[in-house]
Amino acid sequence: MLRGKQTWWFESKPVIIGTATVVGPDEGDGPLAADFDLVHQELDMQQKSWEKAERLLLEQASEFALQNAKLERNQLDFYIGGDLMNQIISNSFAARSLGVPYLGVFGACSTSMESLALASQLIDSGAATHVMAGTCSHNCTAEKQFRYPTEYGSQKPPTAQYTVTGAGAAVVAASGEGPVVECATIGKIVDLGITDPFNMGAAMAPAAVDTIQTHFNDTGRSPSDYDLIVTGDLAGVGHPIAKDLLMQNGVPMDHTLFQDCGLMVYDVQKQKVQAGGSGCACSAVVTYGHLMKRIQKGELKRILVVATGALLSPLSFQQGESIPGIAHAVSIAAGKEL
Amino acid sequence: MLRGKQTWWFESKPVIIGTATVVGPDEGDGPLAADFDLVHQELDMQQKSWEKAERLLLEQASEFALQNAKLERNQLDFYIGGDLMNQIISNSFAARSLGVPYLGVFGACSTSMESLALASQLIDSGAATHVMAGTCSHNCTAEKQFRYPTEYGSQKPPTAQYTVTGAGAAVVAASGEGPVVECATIGKIVDLGITDPFNMGAAMAPAAVDTIQTHFNDTGRSPSDYDLIVTGDLAGVGHPIAKDLLMQNGVPMDHTLFQDCGLMVYDVQKQKVQAGGSGCACSAVVTYGHLMKRIQKGELKRILVVATGALLSPLSFQQGESIPGIAHAVSIAAGKEL
Repeated sequence: MLRGKQTWWFESKPVIIGTATVVGPDEGDGPLAADFDLVHQELDMQQKSWEKAERLLLEQASEFALQNAKLERNQLDFYIGGDLMNQIISNSFAARSLGVPYLGVFGACSTSMESLALASQLIDSGAATHVMAGTCSHNCTAEKQFRYPTEYGSQKPPTAQYTVTGAGAAVVAASGEGPVVECATIGKIVDLGITDPFNMGAAMAPAAVDTIQTHFNDTGRSPSDYDLIVTGDLAGVGHPIAKDLLMQNGVPMDHTLFQDCGLMVYDVQKQKVQAGGSGCACSAVVTYGHLMKRIQKGELKRILVVATGALLSPLSFQQGESIPGIAHAVSIAAGKEL
Repeated sequence: MLRGKQTWWFESKPVIIGTATVVGPDEGDGPLAADFDLVHQELDMQQKSWEKAERLLLEQASEFALQNAKLERNQLDFYIGGDLMNQIISNSFAARSLGVPYLGVFGACSTSMESLALASQLIDSGAATHVMAGTCSHNCTAEKQFRYPTEYGSQKPPTAQYTVTGAGAAVVAASGEGPVVECATIGKIVDLGITDPFNMGAAMAPAAVDTIQTHFNDTGRSPSDYDLIVTGDLAGVGHPIAKDLLMQNGVPMDHTLFQDCGLMVYDVQKQKVQAGGSGCACSAVVTYGHLMKRIQKGELKRILVVATGALLSPLSFQQGESIPGIAHAVSIAAGKEL
């Protein structure tokens, strides 16, 4: 049911009965390595192209998510997913392998929560009993498509971000054991005119702020209702901007409550990732790997994941367009009784 | 509610309270010209790039759809849309202009019915009271991105299709006057291994057949329940294949009942469009322009629109991948009492 202006309130509290994450070597060198189901030691994963490697990540994550959910493929009603590749080919090919009805979505790096929100909405409304939401990204496919092939070795400014190599998938169900999805706030596009594709965190920060404030307005909740509020991939430049904007708007949050997946997935001081992580997989692997495990351990009771997307294309940038930002927020709680 | 395996049955029968279509000069020269809200006389529409022209088409269609629905922008809860452009930029920029919460989707040329199905699902479940579904394509952006810039004048085989220049948008509401959405069947990916991007009709035909048969199985309906069943853009090669496959599978349909938007939007004998129309706008402008008017005139009581998508990218083709096909079907009826 719609609550407030932009929030779906899931009365039935759909259950995340299983998740899985698969990552590349850089993410395996990061602080969350132990939380992923599989860490590849090589970026190419013995595939013939970066694109085939990205697809493999998602195929593996979706297989493992089914295993973790103790579900057969044919029990899945729908698969919802998207990615950064032109025409979201990684997801379309992974959906072909899954063989279930498929809804392709695109929200750039907000895709993780767009797909989880839609999956939960379908479950809550009785339009499905089991839905998988998934997404993926690969550092080398993103560099090749959006900037330069990595083989060129082109240099980047410190505001740039490092696309996460990985995939995350979650199975949402009408019943079962696991964390529950309480509600989702669907974001508007916010575009303050930033045109620098090497500073996407700043372009997305106002969208994150808009969605977070709308979420609180729509639900009557406040920051203290959450143990953790994470943005998707604002990283070292964008996240402080979001924090400052929220402070100015009367929503102060400290650094333990308000964090960013792009700053969690790598050791930003030691790893060469510029301002931090980005990409569709960034919020997906942190949420479906690390945060799910913290919820299941009892360390977190309720979190808000605010996945952020920069809806540009290389062509729109070349044609002088600014970067439209968007953010979708999903509230996940340890159990139905909360 | 889920009915059968892949079909959402909309008990509340969401109402299409307004639609609009905007097209380019070739579509204006076609047999359906009188059914479109606006026909542009020039392909560039006085914009500086083909991409900006495509965006304008969608911005105009969404504005006109609001006008036709007698709705203000701020009454729209969500906009759902997608297109063929990399990172669906036409829709993201149009959603920025609309300024409402935005769910980006991608199903290639099946996007028209993917977005209409999702919009209707949100209305039916109470997750929204007014949702707009929209999509667009432009012949020159598609040629430039998927094949060669039109300025090269490269020749095409007769199996190729001609991307429709246009945009279509529909406003779906919980109540009001207009045709209603009865149900939607979400397709699986079907890929029989076709790798020729100049023969997408053949690649998509088996997906259309799969979705049509699933629709009948899920709903208990048969072809005789419909006045018209249209595929999205199978055109002159793909549509006869689909018809033959359905015949073989025991679902015979004659040429008045079973048609194709790609064969309706142009005069295929006279206009230089090879096998017929394609593109996201093909099924959108035929459905939201021509078919809606025929329903409102009382000529059609119930139709099934089976939008077909070829989920390839130029890169996946270059890497030797086959073309995954998909089709989503939406049943539209003249009124709730049917």
